[in-house]
Amino acid sequence: MKEFEALKKLLERDRTIRRFRQDPVSTATLIELVGLTRLCASGANRQPLVYALVNEPAMLDAIFPALKWAGYYKDWDGPSESERPTAYIVQALDTDIIKNPLCDDGIQLQAITLGAAALGLGGCIIKSFNAQILREALGLPQNITPLYVLALGAPGEEALIVPQRDRDDIFYYRDDKDRQCVPKRPLSDIIFSINNKHGL
Amino acid sequence: MKEFEALKKLLERDRTIRRFRQDPVSTATLIELVGLTRLCASGANRQPLVYALVNEPAMLDAIFPALKWAGYYKDWDGPSESERPTAYIVQALDTDIIKNPLCDDGIQLQAITLGAAALGLGGCIIKSFNAQILREALGLPQNITPLYVLALGAPGEEALIVPQRDRDDIFYYRDDKDRQCVPKRPLSDIIFSINNKHGL
Repeated sequence: MKEFEALKKLLERDRTIRRFRQDPVSTATLIELVGLTRLCASGANRQPLVYALVNEPAMLDAIFPALKWAGYYKDWDGPSESERPTAYIVQALDTDIIKNPLCDDGIQLQAITLGAAALGLGGCIIKSFNAQILREALGLPQNITPLYVLALGAPGEEALIVPQRDRDDIFYYRDDKDRQCVPKRPLSDIIFSINNKHGL
Repeated sequence: MKEFEALKKLLERDRTIRRFRQDPVSTATLIELVGLTRLCASGANRQPLVYALVNEPAMLDAIFPALKWAGYYKDWDGPSESERPTAYIVQALDTDIIKNPLCDDGIQLQAITLGAAALGLGGCIIKSFNAQILREALGLPQNITPLYVLALGAPGEEALIVPQRDRDDIFYYRDDKDRQCVPKRPLSDIIFSINNKHGL
């Protein structure tokens, strides 16, 4: 039970962060984080995912223009120069191994972001990116398809879960203390049935 | 660092298990496990996943025939009657919310299986199932599409990670102690590049 509570606390701390302090993230740390993915379940154990690690200033600058930030913040284009991520972990699929990674992508990203939270880092999983810019910056061959970019760094903002006001309330926002507030569905909406009886 | 090491240990323990002791898993435990998914990042925060929980004998019997077990064990059809899972968590997509859950599926499954490992339970994420049997047993309406079945219970077998013998070695096997051995790729094969320089 103690381990379960520790995991819960870690999941609570593992919030999406889009503004970063400018402390560097070491290559050793990035390697440790990706090392966690070796411990994950993989569909039919195919293990088709690979990673490109980025923490050098020139490479950070090359990746940043490829990324689209926070769709719900219409008047915010992404972190300013002094708030940008100081590292990226790019998750990619080796299509020579398999075309469909099933849910390996999310399983591994969760392991990495939990690891990052455990080390006091924060991040943002980004699906909306210019693949061409990414491919060129990273020198990815044809069979290596980028799936997700995890932006990483020391958290430069606070984020917290808040209750949904209604079922359509999915829009994260910044409150008057400039904290990022993320409405989450109640458990009663997530549990569809128990032993075939509808609802919680 | 202590938290990181604890996470690593939990990930190591969170192995796929396909044979179970027959201790029951309480409804409260299943609810706790699904509760972890509320703490997870979600693509555009849409939160389209819902869960059906199963732990009653009649329902367990109704679900079991829908499942296909361990593709690589050609002479093993799945757990015998005295080794079957004592609970299921069925992850489903509410297609009224969104058609593509991105990697929410894996992110949430990882949270649940880590939670299960923390509670001393084990499980198996199953993608190969007869959706029609599942739909009927669970009374799922048209907009609720089952994505994965997590079979759960007290572990009735040991499982461990072993090094790959070569790049094609992905086939898990049972060793002479009847332990499930799962070959995992070395980190040097998973890290594609560091700051654009190929390899670890």
